[in-house]
Amino acid sequence: MTFSLTILGSNSAIPTLTRNPSAHLLNVNERLFLIDCAEGTQLQIRKFHVHFQRIQRIFISHLHGDHFFGLVGLLNSLHLLGRKEELHIYGPPLLKEIIDLQLGASKTTLNYPLFFYPLSFAGYELIYGDDKVTVHSFPLLHSVPTVGFIFREKKQERRIRKDLLAELKIPVTEMQNLKRGRDYTDERGRVFKNEEITLDPPSQRSYAYCTDTAYTEAILPFIRECDLLYHETTFMQNMAASAKEKQHSTTIEAATLAKKANVKKLLIGHFSARYDDLLPLLEEARSVFPNTILAEDGITIAI
Amino acid sequence: MTFSLTILGSNSAIPTLTRNPSAHLLNVNERLFLIDCAEGTQLQIRKFHVHFQRIQRIFISHLHGDHFFGLVGLLNSLHLLGRKEELHIYGPPLLKEIIDLQLGASKTTLNYPLFFYPLSFAGYELIYGDDKVTVHSFPLLHSVPTVGFIFREKKQERRIRKDLLAELKIPVTEMQNLKRGRDYTDERGRVFKNEEITLDPPSQRSYAYCTDTAYTEAILPFIRECDLLYHETTFMQNMAASAKEKQHSTTIEAATLAKKANVKKLLIGHFSARYDDLLPLLEEARSVFPNTILAEDGITIAI
Repeated sequence: MTFSLTILGSNSAIPTLTRNPSAHLLNVNERLFLIDCAEGTQLQIRKFHVHFQRIQRIFISHLHGDHFFGLVGLLNSLHLLGRKEELHIYGPPLLKEIIDLQLGASKTTLNYPLFFYPLSFAGYELIYGDDKVTVHSFPLLHSVPTVGFIFREKKQERRIRKDLLAELKIPVTEMQNLKRGRDYTDERGRVFKNEEITLDPPSQRSYAYCTDTAYTEAILPFIRECDLLYHETTFMQNMAASAKEKQHSTTIEAATLAKKANVKKLLIGHFSARYDDLLPLLEEARSVFPNTILAEDGITIAI
Repeated sequence: MTFSLTILGSNSAIPTLTRNPSAHLLNVNERLFLIDCAEGTQLQIRKFHVHFQRIQRIFISHLHGDHFFGLVGLLNSLHLLGRKEELHIYGPPLLKEIIDLQLGASKTTLNYPLFFYPLSFAGYELIYGDDKVTVHSFPLLHSVPTVGFIFREKKQERRIRKDLLAELKIPVTEMQNLKRGRDYTDERGRVFKNEEITLDPPSQRSYAYCTDTAYTEAILPFIRECDLLYHETTFMQNMAASAKEKQHSTTIEAATLAKKANVKKLLIGHFSARYDDLLPLLEEARSVFPNTILAEDGITIAI
């Protein structure tokens, strides 16, 4: 199953010609989840050849402009491009009013059903689940109500060993039982333990998105051992005081959380526009957590 | 005096990688007036090396997204970039609410004074004037309340002939009188008619911005004989029925108005994204009004 992430924007605050502000696109089995939607996100979607209409759900972390100013434009373009499929948005309650006011001003009645789910910011909460994935939100530490999101694959079924399928002449009617963990008794009455003829299901992959936030260990229980942690790194460590004041994080802080949470990989982004060269940020983060990579507009990461 | 226009966006409806939607920048003696502000306009400003903070006034024609979805992002970026100077916005009354709601949601208090002037859509109205220029708005014919704008240089003073300044030994104290049209009497009592020693002031240049609108001759009195008329040309003539239904204009309609108004030059834009090649639109318009040019993102036109 596909479980991959495309970075549509890696900058903080202001769009520049080389880095757009926050937007991530998570591909879960070819269903696309958009996470944050800065101004210009729809152009990034075009630029990186993403199929617009495959976006099914949009998650907005908070109402700073660099995380949602592109949303109403995207909704409008999906409408003009003929969308008919449902679209689901998860965000701060006021976002609904912001969307409605602007669509109302232009007398736009969307051609597709739009569902809005207000986030509560109260704690760790299941906000979406289907047969493939669950999404939880949890509070971050920022100047306006902000949540992180964690996307987790659901536990999949056991996989029958292909090499034994023919040898044991396992009938099709038994397949589902084997995938669910039952033992198998063949025509001659021989009993095979499930673990002899099946393999463990693939591990449940997970992706955590944490921006904007000051350093907070309160999120550790929610991100522990995730496969990929995106954590904002607006500043280098020499600007720790600025980071604290503005409720953002530094390289070292993001890497420290990644280490404490024992995540598999750390992805850093939401860079201040003051940094043209991002390698010093990467080096600084790697000094604490070696398996760190840089978010760069347009890259795709298989999780 | 500089009086020039830079096209920041020439497309209708949806931003594409080659043409952004509506935004024009009028340079009046190095003071910049932004007219409409589609999503991505701030990136176009960067791309075409315009000095952000020189923008003094913003005029929004109507509340379709492709004319204002970039405004709140631009206001926010000006704030983050340290603006202190006043900014003045002229637009539909609801625009104020849209701005306030979004800035309020992000708890942003702008670092600079923002003045908002609601447009009335009632008729031909003076909405701004200073020592160099006047701006009037007038109603267009569209599916939501929409205005056109006309920017006119103010009448300037007469210019004293440099070749006669020394010859006639005109004292500095007389200069202002001459510029205002008075005759001159020299030390020896000789009288010189003003027109003998001064030249006519430069003609008053004007720029009219008309989008979005169906064909309407009601605007002729306001745009008559202007130096540059920007008139939307969403469609070619073979789509006249679509244009009428959607209250947009065709090539032939824009060119017919230019001809009837006896303008000096016609600039066409707000092109439907269906047109990759714009030359057929240009040719069609020129068949009626030869002095027509295409709006293309990034071009500057000296008026």
